[in-house]
Amino acid sequence: MARVSKRERSPARSGVFSKPADPLTEAFTQSVSFDRELARHDLAGSLAHARMLLKVGLLTRAEEAALRKGLEAIRAEIEAGRFAWNPAFEDVHMNIEKALADRAGAAAGKLHTARSRNDQIALDERLWVREQLDAIRAELHAVQRSLLALAETYAGDPMPGYTHLQRAQPVTCGHYLLAHVEALERDADRCAEARHRANVLPLGACALAGTSLPIDRAYTAKLLGFEGVTRNSMDTSADRDYLLDFAYAMSVCAIHLSRLAEDFILYATTEFGWLKIDDAWCTGSSIMPQKRNPDLFELIRGKAGRAVGVLNHLLMLLKGTPLTYNRDFQEDKEVLFDATRHFRASLQVLARMLENVSFDRAKMEAACVGGYMDATVLAEFLVRKGLPFRQAHHAAGQLVKVAAAQGKTLSELSVREMQAVHPLLDASVKPVLGPRGAVNSYVSQGSPNPKLVRKEVAAWKKRLARGR
Amino acid sequence: MARVSKRERSPARSGVFSKPADPLTEAFTQSVSFDRELARHDLAGSLAHARMLLKVGLLTRAEEAALRKGLEAIRAEIEAGRFAWNPAFEDVHMNIEKALADRAGAAAGKLHTARSRNDQIALDERLWVREQLDAIRAELHAVQRSLLALAETYAGDPMPGYTHLQRAQPVTCGHYLLAHVEALERDADRCAEARHRANVLPLGACALAGTSLPIDRAYTAKLLGFEGVTRNSMDTSADRDYLLDFAYAMSVCAIHLSRLAEDFILYATTEFGWLKIDDAWCTGSSIMPQKRNPDLFELIRGKAGRAVGVLNHLLMLLKGTPLTYNRDFQEDKEVLFDATRHFRASLQVLARMLENVSFDRAKMEAACVGGYMDATVLAEFLVRKGLPFRQAHHAAGQLVKVAAAQGKTLSELSVREMQAVHPLLDASVKPVLGPRGAVNSYVSQGSPNPKLVRKEVAAWKKRLARGR
Amino acid sequence: MARVSKRERSPARSGVFSKPADPLTEAFTQSVSFDRELARHDLAGSLAHARMLLKVGLLTRAEEAALRKGLEAIRAEIEAGRFAWNPAFEDVHMNIEKALADRAGAAAGKLHTARSRNDQIALDERLWVREQLDAIRAELHAVQRSLLALAETYAGDPMPGYTHLQRAQPVTCGHYLLAHVEALERDADRCAEARHRANVLPLGACALAGTSLPIDRAYTAKLLGFEGVTRNSMDTSADRDYLLDFAYAMSVCAIHLSRLAEDFILYATTEFGWLKIDDAWCTGSSIMPQKRNPDLFELIRGKAGRAVGVLNHLLMLLKGTPLTYNRDFQEDKEVLFDATRHFRASLQVLARMLENVSFDRAKMEAACVGGYMDATVLAEFLVRKGLPFRQAHHAAGQLVKVAAAQGKTLSELSVREMQAVHPLLDASVKPVLGPRGAVNSYVSQGSPNPKLVRKEVAAWKKRLARGR
Amino acid sequence: MARVSKRERSPARSGVFSKPADPLTEAFTQSVSFDRELARHDLAGSLAHARMLLKVGLLTRAEEAALRKGLEAIRAEIEAGRFAWNPAFEDVHMNIEKALADRAGAAAGKLHTARSRNDQIALDERLWVREQLDAIRAELHAVQRSLLALAETYAGDPMPGYTHLQRAQPVTCGHYLLAHVEALERDADRCAEARHRANVLPLGACALAGTSLPIDRAYTAKLLGFEGVTRNSMDTSADRDYLLDFAYAMSVCAIHLSRLAEDFILYATTEFGWLKIDDAWCTGSSIMPQKRNPDLFELIRGKAGRAVGVLNHLLMLLKGTPLTYNRDFQEDKEVLFDATRHFRASLQVLARMLENVSFDRAKMEAACVGGYMDATVLAEFLVRKGLPFRQAHHAAGQLVKVAAAQGKTLSELSVREMQAVHPLLDASVKPVLGPRGAVNSYVSQGSPNPKLVRKEVAAWKKRLARGR
Repeated sequence: MARVSKRERSPARSGVFSKPADPLTEAFTQSVSFDRELARHDLAGSLAHARMLLKVGLLTRAEEAALRKGLEAIRAEIEAGRFAWNPAFEDVHMNIEKALADRAGAAAGKLHTARSRNDQIALDERLWVREQLDAIRAELHAVQRSLLALAETYAGDPMPGYTHLQRAQPVTCGHYLLAHVEALERDADRCAEARHRANVLPLGACALAGTSLPIDRAYTAKLLGFEGVTRNSMDTSADRDYLLDFAYAMSVCAIHLSRLAEDFILYATTEFGWLKIDDAWCTGSSIMPQKRNPDLFELIRGKAGRAVGVLNHLLMLLKGTPLTYNRDFQEDKEVLFDATRHFRASLQVLARMLENVSFDRAKMEAACVGGYMDATVLAEFLVRKGLPFRQAHHAAGQLVKVAAAQGKTLSELSVREMQAVHPLLDASVKPVLGPRGAVNSYVSQGSPNPKLVRKEVAAWKKRLARGR
Repeated sequence: MARVSKRERSPARSGVFSKPADPLTEAFTQSVSFDRELARHDLAGSLAHARMLLKVGLLTRAEEAALRKGLEAIRAEIEAGRFAWNPAFEDVHMNIEKALADRAGAAAGKLHTARSRNDQIALDERLWVREQLDAIRAELHAVQRSLLALAETYAGDPMPGYTHLQRAQPVTCGHYLLAHVEALERDADRCAEARHRANVLPLGACALAGTSLPIDRAYTAKLLGFEGVTRNSMDTSADRDYLLDFAYAMSVCAIHLSRLAEDFILYATTEFGWLKIDDAWCTGSSIMPQKRNPDLFELIRGKAGRAVGVLNHLLMLLKGTPLTYNRDFQEDKEVLFDATRHFRASLQVLARMLENVSFDRAKMEAACVGGYMDATVLAEFLVRKGLPFRQAHHAAGQLVKVAAAQGKTLSELSVREMQAVHPLLDASVKPVLGPRGAVNSYVSQGSPNPKLVRKEVAAWKKRLARGR
Repeated sequence: MARVSKRERSPARSGVFSKPADPLTEAFTQSVSFDRELARHDLAGSLAHARMLLKVGLLTRAEEAALRKGLEAIRAEIEAGRFAWNPAFEDVHMNIEKALADRAGAAAGKLHTARSRNDQIALDERLWVREQLDAIRAELHAVQRSLLALAETYAGDPMPGYTHLQRAQPVTCGHYLLAHVEALERDADRCAEARHRANVLPLGACALAGTSLPIDRAYTAKLLGFEGVTRNSMDTSADRDYLLDFAYAMSVCAIHLSRLAEDFILYATTEFGWLKIDDAWCTGSSIMPQKRNPDLFELIRGKAGRAVGVLNHLLMLLKGTPLTYNRDFQEDKEVLFDATRHFRASLQVLARMLENVSFDRAKMEAACVGGYMDATVLAEFLVRKGLPFRQAHHAAGQLVKVAAAQGKTLSELSVREMQAVHPLLDASVKPVLGPRGAVNSYVSQGSPNPKLVRKEVAAWKKRLARGR
Repeated sequence: MARVSKRERSPARSGVFSKPADPLTEAFTQSVSFDRELARHDLAGSLAHARMLLKVGLLTRAEEAALRKGLEAIRAEIEAGRFAWNPAFEDVHMNIEKALADRAGAAAGKLHTARSRNDQIALDERLWVREQLDAIRAELHAVQRSLLALAETYAGDPMPGYTHLQRAQPVTCGHYLLAHVEALERDADRCAEARHRANVLPLGACALAGTSLPIDRAYTAKLLGFEGVTRNSMDTSADRDYLLDFAYAMSVCAIHLSRLAEDFILYATTEFGWLKIDDAWCTGSSIMPQKRNPDLFELIRGKAGRAVGVLNHLLMLLKGTPLTYNRDFQEDKEVLFDATRHFRASLQVLARMLENVSFDRAKMEAACVGGYMDATVLAEFLVRKGLPFRQAHHAAGQLVKVAAAQGKTLSELSVREMQAVHPLLDASVKPVLGPRGAVNSYVSQGSPNPKLVRKEVAAWKKRLARGR
């Protein structure tokens, strides 16, 4: 627990109590050691609140100016690292309020007009969530851009596509990379939704019951760039959905990253062997030169635990709590701040690291030879010739047996050998066989055909350039 | 494990294997004991797929008709409970495929053209999710309507508003109930978002690589009411986000319900004592007549565990799995089906139960007297008279001390006693005091003022009537 | 929700209520659709309770005999599948109580003496947990025995040991398999601890306050094989730790199984390629003969989600609930029953499947050649010769460079080439090089040396034969 | 991410790589910003390792002395806060290793003999877990002692016992408090089990394969106070069960604390009203004198989320990771350190706070009057007179009806009125009625009878004094 040593009484305790809080109480309840991360947002909220109070006549022009000056001075001190945070004043709001009293005199006493810490913390959190989501969306874009650059480079290069981690059909490396772009786009969508839901003004709910003062909530909302105002003061005080939505969006994205990381770790093994991570982005063994530990991908995979842990933390925190505000909610910040830092670091590292990996085309293509991964397109060839699918499928199976008996690939069979299995197999089947034949034969929308991949890359680039 | 006794080999194993699966393998891998819940969706998907194959020339008109007839016959059998599900055929797809082969003859062999079980299960799940979300949104509306009916009835009745479960300020019961309407509306929004993201066609991704056959995915999508098609075949095969989004939307709503349930359980205690649950909706003790156990609210509260458990189950399932499909994913259905049933039961029960509770107006209002819950509006009265908030707050505190010393409420003080504390306190303060005075004094948007509550109720009714 | 159609009133509602429960209430609150799994335990508890009541004089000999006869008759009916479960009687206890009233006449009315459903359900759950844990421990042993059989077969065969999924040092396959035996033994320990903590009698706590009747709890405990009795009636009614401990033990074991499964899935890929799963224990593709999907291992891996999901479910369920019993607790059974079934199926399948896999010795050993995985033992050779570790390590690194420059393994270097790097390297280094040289050189306790592995296998066999 | 600015290369990268790590790599992979918490344990491990190396002849006496001196100097610097931690040296081990090289010269190069960071971190974590568990067990005892002191004070005072949060039967306040003592004792047991399982030496597993050097693991284990050594080097490197066990023990305890907190928050409401928290241990409102926010209990309740979040984090982290060590595991420390700090703060605060609460005997007893909570003991009275339980229960119900019709309690009925309901009701029933009558009538082991409560308190005191 943070140590609290102080001479002054917390302003939150003035009046009714016969004695000061026990030092242990203060150490246990203080939040300023972590909620100071919200200082910028708290100051922005106070500036807007003051302007609104001026507009509705609850502050004079001079008072508003004094407050503004004081708040700006505090902001400058904080940015310069000169602000003296004091755990005796419990939280970020009280620390700033106390500092403002020293700087803005009597006017400071008016800033809490029609505002309580309950709606103030909701405001700060919502502003923070909005800011983080914007940053994350930009970072997601950066990862997507890195993936697109790789996808363009390897748009036409065959690699094995896996189901059950067994080689299934040849795909193109570019197509594989675009699969991750898709998943990340859904993550960006979830971020957008979370942002939208968070982006309403809670100020004016006061403690829980609104106010009898003639405030203008819509005006404050406009000043702070909110899309609207919350509609029920009790719900406003009780609601932490905006944190859940944020933690959930992170969690799913972290799960996506864990899957990408798993693949890249596999591809970088000696056994798969076609992903090379640049020296600057992995670690090694001082005496085993081939050992290139994909530490960063492992850390990214591991960080899935952190995001999901926080999501559970928050759900547990809220479960069964009565309306409206409960002090339990104070526990919503610290872990979320930490997890967000780690999550964003993953995105930042990944965007850069993807610029520093390369795929070994020859190895990937070699992995597509053998295993009869082109048997499916051969069956489809027969379907195009008019054979029912089940028969075509059976014929392809027969052909594989013939080839396997001779230790050949399908491409290596002669047309005669093929026709012995089924008369519809003629020389025109040759171009669909082999890794390149197979990937070039795909025509369906969303398939790994190199041409389609290049089109998708172009479409994505345009889309991302538009900033979505 | 479900017992498998069969004579026939699973169609999925034809060809390459030297021996049949071990009975334990079949019992362990079968999913038809639970995925038969998807039969309707599977049939709908097959019907649309067949029509698409007809359109692009991969089926003849006669073949499509035969398939349609066969599929409709199977649907009828299933609906009538006459279909013989066989775990030896592993899953819902194979069971239907096998039955279709018996009914549609050669044409059945063509239905799997350009389709694999990987995209078929994704299709069925997406259709199921869409259907469930539609039902849940309707059920959420029903709960909201019940809350609105109650809110209308108790729109102007004072009740204590709580923070820290301590009485804080008087609110109106209607306003309290509207707080839950707001939370549920965010749940409905999350459902809408989950639906939107799920509502794209996966068919055509085939196993993972699309196809070389000239299919028309957009046409199938249109037939099935999808908003679009997935854009990457590998992502399509690997993606289960639509289940996560669904489980998350349920989880948050279940947390909201746990909070509503907690409040109602509290209000129904002897100690709070102002909520009466109709005899038909609670249980009791045979010899303690006052004991009215709020079992249904407790069960609703407890079911939060189930939804959150499933969300964790799914996140854990997906973590670190390589692209694309892995058999692990089979584990995504059973628990989700169960949890959904329980969750929807909670909503259904709640909608009805809220029609069978009543609030004791006198007890609620009595609970607002004493405790000086109107001290805040008194301070705001002084602010309106021009006093800075901190001074007004201080004066209110002083007045409370005076009153408390005499064992009086603020209303019971004479104007003279008030003026002794602060000269701005005149007779015009009287109307804002007491529970009704306080709630009537609130003017800010979103506050518990009875007039505002009635407006909100009206606005909500209109909104829900529009079906949103 | 289970449909309830009945003519009779639930015995739990007799007396105080003006009307029967709404059908929806009954459907929502009934638990007999799943808690009938506890019927055997409930009957055993009733038999013991009756004997205790006889002992303390609260039942006559004739009454006890009548009850015993009735309970045995019910047990027979249930076992024969002839018992008519009725959701109108809510739960397993009431169903049996009602049936007993029909069979044992007046005596039935005495069985509830000094017993309530609150302690009855705790009893049934504890007996069920004990039984399941015993079965699971036996199943864990079976898996361990299968692993030991494999470990014995491959005790001396080199395979690559991995860190970061990069080949690090040669180990023996037997040693690798023993690593899993160790992890599962910790699981068995956790099961033993969970069993010990669950294994105390709750009966006698009654609803929550014990009783004024002269019961003999120790006697009932002895009859039911409990190690003792619970010590506080309120804690007894409120406690569900025994379910948490059980769910936790399962969760960790499921995580262990997910790691084993991951390894086996990797080893069965074309890329690693040294694990062969017998045809009867995997699935394949009808046209890709090399495709051997390790479905069962994937399902085992996926089921980690289920166990962890249930653990979260239970923790969430209990969080913040007041003492003592709350109806929320009813939600503790269904998911646990399901998850246990799945978890035990994993163990049963795994024990059998491990008898049906084989390792390709040649491929494993080949994978240990190249990559200089013996560089560490070479460095240790120099340490044994007196060189400080850091210098030895450096010399080994130098030697690897020399070898790599020539495309040789360390074994392939001549003694002269070695001595050029460090004079202490003489011919006696040869035996520690290469996969077999390396594994044979390990001497530390717990290392992969084939001799140590064989000793461990023998020690484990003896230990497991003792039944632990 | 922690900024890394350095001139020197990390010792972990010496040799094979063509270029240094990217600064982002170093910032992302460094752990010293949090694993420095393990410095004491790391030093203790090194000291023991050096002594073992001396014993087996791998160090000379002089070398061991030099290492000891160097390590002690580093310990002193760290304790004095003068040690210069450098993120460029990645982790706590490398920072200390580097510092030791500066202080112990050549000998430092020998300390890594037969030791790798993989087993070093496992060692440090195990020592840390052991230390934390010891502290937690002491803190649990302190909370239990505080509860016992309260239980002694209120041993005989009736309070309502709740099921479904409805008043059910009178219990004694002391008995209620002892219920929590029981739950915390199970927590202490789980801590003991977690400690036992963690308390084995991992050193000697080296990276994953043990060593060819003649180390003496048992000796190192003895020096460090371990109960034994791990038995399989690969399992040792892969195992993190000791962290799971720790996180689980914390989670269940945190859930227990959330339930205690919930009760205390309820009892401190105006509505329940019989718990008074001393001014120094709660917060209030400056103008609502009756408002005494139980913030500390709310924070304790909320912290359940943190422990459960970390448990999930760790389970997710480990799921599906291949053997042996993976860099993902680095993510296991930071959140666990944080959660442990918070959890222990809860225990520390709770132990003190329980010394600063008081129960209002009159209010508690008053809450037991009315509601016919003594009807059950009245029924049991009739059972003791020979009536079958169901008839006795029925008679009690009848009597309640009679009393309720007159607005009387059972005590207030005359003997004549009672006998009209059942002839066995005579004057001797009077002493079991009313709150005190009821609690004094309980005789069963573990029941709330004041005499039994006092005995339990005495037994617990003796047990805790023995240090268990």
